[in-house]
Amino acid sequence: MPTLLIGQGFDAHRFAAPGSCRPLWLAGLLWSAPAGADAAALAQYEGIEGDSDGDVAAHALIDALLSAAGLGDIGALFGVGAGARGAGMHGCAMLRETVSFMREHGYEPSSASVVVIGNRPRLGSRRAEAEQALSQAVGCRVSLTATTTDHMGFTGRGEGVAAIANALVRPLQARHAA
Amino acid sequence: MPTLLIGQGFDAHRFAAPGSCRPLWLAGLLWSAPAGADAAALAQYEGIEGDSDGDVAAHALIDALLSAAGLGDIGALFGVGAGARGAGMHGCAMLRETVSFMREHGYEPSSASVVVIGNRPRLGSRRAEAEQALSQAVGCRVSLTATTTDHMGFTGRGEGVAAIANALVRPLQARHAA
Amino acid sequence: MPTLLIGQGFDAHRFAAPGSCRPLWLAGLLWSAPAGADAAALAQYEGIEGDSDGDVAAHALIDALLSAAGLGDIGALFGVGAGARGAGMHGCAMLRETVSFMREHGYEPSSASVVVIGNRPRLGSRRAEAEQALSQAVGCRVSLTATTTDHMGFTGRGEGVAAIANALVRPLQARHAA
Repeated sequence: MPTLLIGQGFDAHRFAAPGSCRPLWLAGLLWSAPAGADAAALAQYEGIEGDSDGDVAAHALIDALLSAAGLGDIGALFGVGAGARGAGMHGCAMLRETVSFMREHGYEPSSASVVVIGNRPRLGSRRAEAEQALSQAVGCRVSLTATTTDHMGFTGRGEGVAAIANALVRPLQARHAA
Repeated sequence: MPTLLIGQGFDAHRFAAPGSCRPLWLAGLLWSAPAGADAAALAQYEGIEGDSDGDVAAHALIDALLSAAGLGDIGALFGVGAGARGAGMHGCAMLRETVSFMREHGYEPSSASVVVIGNRPRLGSRRAEAEQALSQAVGCRVSLTATTTDHMGFTGRGEGVAAIANALVRPLQARHAA
Repeated sequence: MPTLLIGQGFDAHRFAAPGSCRPLWLAGLLWSAPAGADAAALAQYEGIEGDSDGDVAAHALIDALLSAAGLGDIGALFGVGAGARGAGMHGCAMLRETVSFMREHGYEPSSASVVVIGNRPRLGSRRAEAEQALSQAVGCRVSLTATTTDHMGFTGRGEGVAAIANALVRPLQARHAA
């Protein structure tokens, strides 16, 4: 078996309707409106829909990691729907459980990376913090970049947010060789 | 030359119009309606347009593999249009020919992964079978995940299906070293 | 630290309005209309908007490289907006500066790949030239593929162009080991 295996992940979710007051979790962090924000500012912190916390960055990373390890995908591991095991779980908790599952099956993450595509929140202001949260959950370096689509497409119209991730994993016995 | 080279692939195709009765090939498999399906159920198995069988998962993998090997892309290898050499070919046959072409030029696949983005078919129910078909065609582990876009964008509206793939390849002489 | 680290990149930009006479830079090359082109043909060579030259292929590669090295993203390195340091810069110049920045921080590119998604220009006709320009700028093999989305989505409607890239980088001290 090769010492490094590659995986690809993708996820997209819709923003909750204005006034839903759903917390905005993305890239392992909670994004809260500043104190005293008016309704327009609050709308910028409306959360992302999903059975779990809607963290597309974490979800795309999970699929990239599972795919690299040949261990299925997020739906198979956490279930789908409001009654699923993953319902209500935070992205970093799902990532930690994913890595435990991988280790039980003989793999560990080597490095991973995720791009978030969307108008909000502005991830750049807290990238170091987000990378630290994701890296601690995964147990290897996880990098984060963010971009927009110039008002084009569903991310550009602010309907939702998407994420593309990739990952390298290695068999546990190759730990010292790779 | 590095012992591992990386490639990225992407493809998207439109679903054929309802009533086209085009077979639905995706991720190396034929997806057939259950016996006795009514018109609404049959529409869920309408195929994907394309000069070949429209298998975007296979096509994205081909571009990821060729790109990693620095050997062009699917259009250069199989041609474009109804009269092209690749017209009517199935995804797995194209993958096998791609890998032969790579080997002739001194490369072999090391691992690969593909995400299919679309509303149908529900790939999860046959993922192991699809991964086996794709892995046999490529000659290394190929992983498959699947996701939707919450009714957003062209995949969410059911207009078509997209796939993002990545791959690692290695020079043939590095076979035992990597 | 692993000998190979992976990164993911994405970028999308809008085509300039017809008649803007903005030069069309993509994948490290200038795409000029043939002499004597009429207005319809000229419109096929209208450029891509952006603070820099709008070269989404170069920009996606930059994010993939920086992400693999854990060194932030294109916005952090080159700034955002008309007054930013990267304003007006060409993609290959930005790539060269990105790689210098990486080397100063102990990393070098190992291989990279980018897919351009859009209706125009037809990259296949000059792929070797584009790959040479990008590879020279990055200092390792960079592969390019191109595809369309069958008239679906913002790329299919010709509103803009997108690019997905991935990259492997290695720590400088691992140069001879990997």
